[in-house]
Formats: sequence, structure tokens, C-alpha cells
Amino acid sequence: MPQDAALAQQDDLATLSLVEAADALVRGEVTALALTEACLARIRRHDAALNSVIWLDEAAALEAAAAADRRRARGEALGPLHGVPMAHKDMYYQAGKPCSCGSAIRRDFRPTYTATLISRLEEAGALTLGGLNMAEFAQNPTGHNRHFGDCQNPWVRGRITGGSSSGSGAAVAAGFAFMALGSDTGGSIRLPASACGVTGLKPTQTRLSRHGVMPLSFSCDNAGPLTRTARDCARVMTVMAGHDPKDPTSAREPVPDYEAALDGDLRGLRIGVAREWFLEAVDADVLRAFEAALDVLRGRGATVVPVELAMMREVLTYGAVVSRAEAAAIHATWMRDRPGDFAAHISGRLFPGYAVPAAYYLEALSRRGPVLRGFAQAAFGAAFGAVDLLASPTIPGALPSLAETDIDSGDPGAISRFGAISRNTRPFNYLGLPAISIPCGFDDRGAPVGLQLAGRPFAEARVMQAADAFQRDTDWHRRRPRLD
Amino acid sequence: MPQDAALAQQDDLATLSLVEAADALVRGEVTALALTEACLARIRRHDAALNSVIWLDEAAALEAAAAADRRRARGEALGPLHGVPMAHKDMYYQAGKPCSCGSAIRRDFRPTYTATLISRLEEAGALTLGGLNMAEFAQNPTGHNRHFGDCQNPWVRGRITGGSSSGSGAAVAAGFAFMALGSDTGGSIRLPASACGVTGLKPTQTRLSRHGVMPLSFSCDNAGPLTRTARDCARVMTVMAGHDPKDPTSAREPVPDYEAALDGDLRGLRIGVAREWFLEAVDADVLRAFEAALDVLRGRGATVVPVELAMMREVLTYGAVVSRAEAAAIHATWMRDRPGDFAAHISGRLFPGYAVPAAYYLEALSRRGPVLRGFAQAAFGAAFGAVDLLASPTIPGALPSLAETDIDSGDPGAISRFGAISRNTRPFNYLGLPAISIPCGFDDRGAPVGLQLAGRPFAEARVMQAADAFQRDTDWHRRRPRLD
Repeated sequence: MPQDAALAQQDDLATLSLVEAADALVRGEVTALALTEACLARIRRHDAALNSVIWLDEAAALEAAAAADRRRARGEALGPLHGVPMAHKDMYYQAGKPCSCGSAIRRDFRPTYTATLISRLEEAGALTLGGLNMAEFAQNPTGHNRHFGDCQNPWVRGRITGGSSSGSGAAVAAGFAFMALGSDTGGSIRLPASACGVTGLKPTQTRLSRHGVMPLSFSCDNAGPLTRTARDCARVMTVMAGHDPKDPTSAREPVPDYEAALDGDLRGLRIGVAREWFLEAVDADVLRAFEAALDVLRGRGATVVPVELAMMREVLTYGAVVSRAEAAAIHATWMRDRPGDFAAHISGRLFPGYAVPAAYYLEALSRRGPVLRGFAQAAFGAAFGAVDLLASPTIPGALPSLAETDIDSGDPGAISRFGAISRNTRPFNYLGLPAISIPCGFDDRGAPVGLQLAGRPFAEARVMQAADAFQRDTDWHRRRPRLD
Repeated sequence: MPQDAALAQQDDLATLSLVEAADALVRGEVTALALTEACLARIRRHDAALNSVIWLDEAAALEAAAAADRRRARGEALGPLHGVPMAHKDMYYQAGKPCSCGSAIRRDFRPTYTATLISRLEEAGALTLGGLNMAEFAQNPTGHNRHFGDCQNPWVRGRITGGSSSGSGAAVAAGFAFMALGSDTGGSIRLPASACGVTGLKPTQTRLSRHGVMPLSFSCDNAGPLTRTARDCARVMTVMAGHDPKDPTSAREPVPDYEAALDGDLRGLRIGVAREWFLEAVDADVLRAFEAALDVLRGRGATVVPVELAMMREVLTYGAVVSRAEAAAIHATWMRDRPGDFAAHISGRLFPGYAVPAAYYLEALSRRGPVLRGFAQAAFGAAFGAVDLLASPTIPGALPSLAETDIDSGDPGAISRFGAISRNTRPFNYLGLPAISIPCGFDDRGAPVGLQLAGRPFAEARVMQAADAFQRDTDWHRRRPRLD
């Protein structure tokens, strides 16, 4: 086979969806080793431009792939992710492996234990290639990183990837891995999913274990997957969800078979659209894509109705108090001892957190239940036609460039552009509600646009079912960026 | 029967221990109505002097007593507390009944639901007479109350009762009720137990449900019983303990039959005594009583060994940060809107809490596990002979008078005397460890002295077993104050 044809075949393999790859493995049409080599080959060819990978353990990945193929050849009982290569935001602990958290301070950190989610994925057969670029300590929505270099958008060089799971978004879009774990404290899964044209799910608060995951805000942190499709998300969620004794905060709610719920049928589904807040700062291209997306959902049987929101002022104010206070507390020792080792835009976000009084913090935390109740009654309640999901653009404005959002440059406009990125994602972190971002088009400069669908507590199945139905009638999630 | 003889008989009834009363009811030697009338008669005769009762519902109590007697007469299956009259610190919610929390602000508050502990006691057959005096919002260790009057020590008029469960200590000592719930955030059950010569247990943090109990500090609040004997405590603890779905923070640890564990056998038991902190400020009379108490425990087979403590600075500092920040948060709205409705010594304690930064609070909270581990390894660990219990005086100094500890008087010495009272009880609240106070003598002015025994997490059975063994060889718990 000539070299070009071999490359093209590897590209075809590496850009399958996770479910397609897993199913091809089951049918014996491809080996784990071939998939792993295809991913590694693409990383070698393209990551110099994207800067999405912080570290790789190629030898371990190839060895695990070969072992996976041998187990399959022996006819052993295999998990649903057997032989599928993945890579994760570099803040998931793996015993003995690097875990930089995107920071200079943890550059040489090697945890002694492994995150529960990584263990569960590997028990289901997944392979782990390495650690992906991210905002320093998961603290920006852009993908800037002073220590490991900024992550580049695979679609339009110079635009942001979104953050903080920047490498996860870029790597899944670029065909470097079939799935990447991210984390989401204010949008950090959904924003890179939107900006990189992939699917990213922030589950209900506490749905997934956070054992062995770098914390930023105990109350607002969520682990979650970035994949190419909603079906991919459903498959890995079924593997990962469920109470973890090592994370006492993890939910005890039963875990459905999320993939079995994907029936494509949206008849009877009611989707609410709130103009307040979520559409107030929307770009014209984004609005066009969003409205077209609503038409697709209507075409599958859904009804789209306007909803009015309640308690948004509390959601935004309390949410900021909680996440800033907790981030300040978590980084207190390093901020005291090594403030110069943070990028200026990271320490600059942390400093105000030290001025939050404990009584405000506790008020913000103790109001969370009543605010969620008030918001949910207005958004999902009978008064407004009992909608099942809320739809909005994930990033309402035009996707900015890295330069336009570089706070460290001293450009005062950068701060407001920086804050505007996570406008539509942040509310769901204080509220704790599940929300997905799926690709729904491109703006006139070729950058992906994301559709956010948010649901009721623990309604991940409903959220993914609607996203999957959308993807049955669209091919935005099948588009691949040109990387040459 | 002449009136004096009738009174004497009522006095005899009302000063039985809870277990004696319950057993006499079972044997048909006394009726619930007679016990209730005896308690009410003593309250009428003596509470003008003690001021331990905030409200009574005599009609309801007498009706419930009569109903209890009818059920017994019908041979119905009855709970272990059937027909036993109780009264509780006036911060336990009872649907439709008053619940002043010892405050002017809640003087007219009538909750719409009932505390789980009250419900469990009543399901076991207990009768509820009314609400007992307490420090305003449970916030002093003395028993001062600007709104309902100071509670008086039944043994030596003018001395403090201890607080904040002042009325609970005084009422149980005075024969007004066979058991009283208190609450303990820094010693508020153990201090009045010590000062009033009764038995008071602060269980392990989260062992008892706090549903329907006025909060002061989520992290340090404990519900618990004041009774005449350790056996009484064991009986009511078996009824009250166990996870409560209405209080998600309540422990899921299995509940032993605490009373069955009371075998009087202390052979093999190792009791640690720490001179550091716990004996640094001890009064000579108190020390004499404490050392005599250790001899009694030795006589039952226990070994007493010195222990060295670890992390006491962290225990004290972090404990203060957590409880002050939480108290400030809980009272924020009233402190903003009605500061003049708090007694000066209460608002004066709350104000500094508003200056605690959230990052300090979160540090203090997140260090709780490691500090407990460090303290417990030093105190209970093999390095110091693996002791089972820590013994100390409950209140190390001579019991002060109400006048000596009246902060509102402006006497600067009052503040340090006020703070010294809870010196030995406070550490176990941040640590979350179970601790009991039992009477072990009197000082030279006739005020009771208390022995504190603290145990490992969820070792309530061990703590009560040692206290009960002590009470088999002593009669301090049988002494009754002269109230005439």
C-alpha cells in the first residue's frame, strides 16, 4: 500500500466515532493496535500545530493495545470499550503517570493512585494514551496556557479552543483519541466541545465520581466526557456512572442504560427557549445556527416553547461566590508560597476569592436548594408548559481569538470577552443540572457553533436522547477539520 | 394521706432515674399520670426559683399520660419509654408548639413539623411536657438569658447552670423531667450536666438526627440527652440513634443496643489522661474529685495512663473558625435586620464571625479529617498504649457565678471566665468525638463536679459502659439538690 493510502486509512480509522470504532473491534474489522497506531500517527503529524497533548506514554499504550488484541483473540469476555484508545485532560490521576494539571507547580507531580473514572474506563477495556492540554488548574474558558503553550482550534487557527478542557476538545476533534475526559466547573467541558465541534456532556452534579480528579470547586466541579457523538457519550456514561465509595459525594441514583434510551423519537418532548440571559448577547451567525437546530428538533417531533426564567440573579451571584471562594481555598497554600508560578490571569482570578466572607459563602451554598427549586419550577414547571429541556447556544457570541481574550496582554476588552464566553454554561454549574453541547453548524469564518441542551436533575438520558436524535438528522458531528 | 406525705411520695417518684421510672411503669407500680403529675407538681413548686422552664403544655401532657395508661391497661404492645415524662431544650421543633430558641426573635415561632428525635422518643412512648430554658440561640456556656431570665443552679443559687442547655441540666437535676434533650456545639450538653450534677452525652458528630433542631453550626452541632444516669442515656440513645432520611448528614453506622453493653466490667479498659490543655487550668477541688474518680475506674479494672496530645493548636484554631463562621452565616439575616433584638453578649460573639474569610473557613473544614486522624493516632493510637477513652474534668475551673460571667455587665474579667468554662469540652466538637459528662463529686462550696470521658468515633457504647460502671460504685448521680 502506498504511503498516502496508508495515511488515508489511518485517518479513516482515527476519525470513526467511539461507537463505530468499538463495534468495528467487536466485528474483527480492526485491531486495537491499528486504532492506537492511527491515533498516535495523527498526533505525531498534527499536534505540533494544535498543542493539545501534554504527555504520551506510547509504549504503554501500544503494549496495552496488543494485550487487548490478544485477549480478544483468546475469546475472553470483554468490556464495552475493549481496545478503544482515549486520552484525558491532564488532571485525572493515574498511579505513577504525570499529572501536570496544566500548571508549572504540578509539572513533576505523579500521583500514587488512579481516578475512579479512569479505572472504570480501563476495566471496560479502554486504553489510555496520555494527558491532554488544559487551562492552568482548569481556570480559563479559552485554552490559554502560559506553561505548556496555548491550545489551538483545529478548525480556525488562532481562535480559542474553549477551556478549560482545551486539549480534550481539540484532540477529539482532530482524531487523536476517541474520547477524552474533561472537567466542567463553569462550562469547561461544553465550551471546548462547542468551539471544537464535538459533543461534551456535563452530567448532573455528583453523577460521576471525582475521586482522583484535581479539584477546583467542590460544589461546582463535574467530570464528564468529550466525544464525537451523543451515542459515544451514552456508551461511556453507562460505564462511568454510579456511586463510588471513594467519593462520598457521588450520587447513589440508579444508572440507566443510557445507550438503550437513544430511540430518536422526540414526539411529545417539550423544549424551552429562554430569551432572558441566554439569548441576550447572541451573535447573528450563532442565532441562525441555533434556530436551524430548533427546526431539526421540531422535525423529530419536539415542541419548542418560550420559557421565562426565575432566580437568575441568585444563580449568577451565588454561583460566582461559591466557585471563587472554593477555588481560593484550594489554591491558598500555593498562592501564599508561590504566587509567581501562576500565570497572571490565573492568580488574578484567584485573588478576589480571598476577600469572600465565609458567611456570604455559606449563604450562597445554603440557598442552592431553594434557588434550584425556584429556577426549575419556572423553567421546567407546569406554569410554562412543563418543558423537558432548555435549549440555548453554548457560546452565544462569535468565537473570539486567543489574542482577543489574552488577559495577560493588558487589553481591557479582553476581560469582558473572556467572561462572555461562559455566560450560557455557568448557570448550570451552580444549579447542578445536566447539560450537553453538540455541534450545530459553523459561523461565517468556519468556526463551529454549539447547541446546549440542559435537563432536569439526573435527566442525562433525556439530554443525550435529544442530542442523539438531532445527530440522526444532521452531519455537523461528522465533519472533520482539515489539519494540513 | 397527709399533704406532706403526698408531696414526699411525689418527690420520690419524680427523682427516680428514667430507667427506674420506666421499669416501675412496666411492673404496674406507678402510672404515667402519677409520674406526670409528680413532675408538674415539682415544677410548680420549684421552678420560680430555678427558671428552667420556658413553656409547659400541662393539659396535653396529662392527656397523653392518661392515654398511655389506658394503652397499658389494654395490654397493647408498648415502647421502651412508654409513659415517661420528658421536657426538652426549647429549640426542638414540635408541630404547632412554641419553640423560642431562647430568643426574643423567635418568641412567637411555632414550627409546622416535629424534630425526628422527638418523634422517635414519642413513638417509643415518651411524653413531652414542654420547652426548657436555654442560652439565646444556644450561644453561651453559662445559662444567662436576657429574654427569659437566667437559669439558676439547683445546687448553689447564683452559680451558673452551665449552658447552653441550661434548663435541661437544671430540670433533670431538679426532678422536673426524667430526660431532657440538649444540644452541644462546644460543650452545651456536657457543661450543664457537669454544673447541675447530671449525666449528659454528646454523641459522635452525625450520630443523631438534627432534623427539626435549631442550627448553630452545621459542622459542630450535636443533639443529645441529659439524664440522671448513664443507663438512662443508653436507653434513650438506642431509641434515638440511626440514620434519618430527613437529615442526610445523619450517620448510617449501625446502632448497637447500648443498654445491653452496660456490663460494669472495665478490665482491660485503658483510660488516657492528658495533662496538656485538659489539666492546665484545673481547680484544686476539681482535681481532687477527678483523681478520686480515676481511682473508682481503676477499682473496676481500668488502667489509667498518661497520654500526650497532637494537633491541639489546630483543633482549637480550626474549631473556632468553623463554628464562628457558621454561626455568623446562620444568623446573618437577623443580625442585619434586628441586631438590637439579640442580647449584647450574643451579638458580640456573632460579629467577629462575619470577618472570617471563606478560604479560612474552607481550610478549617478541609483539615478536619487529617486533624482528627493526627489527634486520634496520638491520643488513642499504639504509640501511647492504645487507650480506649480520654478522661478529664468537664469544667476544669471552680464553677463561677452568674455575676462573675456576666459579659453584658462590662466586667472585662467576665470574658476570660466565660471562655474558660468550655475549655475542655470544645475540642471534641471540631474533632466530632463522643464524650459524656457524669457527676463525680462536689467542690467545697457544694457545686457539682463533672468527669468527662471521650471516646473514638462512634464508640458511644464504650463511653456509656465506662460511665455506667463508675456509677455502680458511686452515688453522686443519686444525690438530689435541696430546692426548698
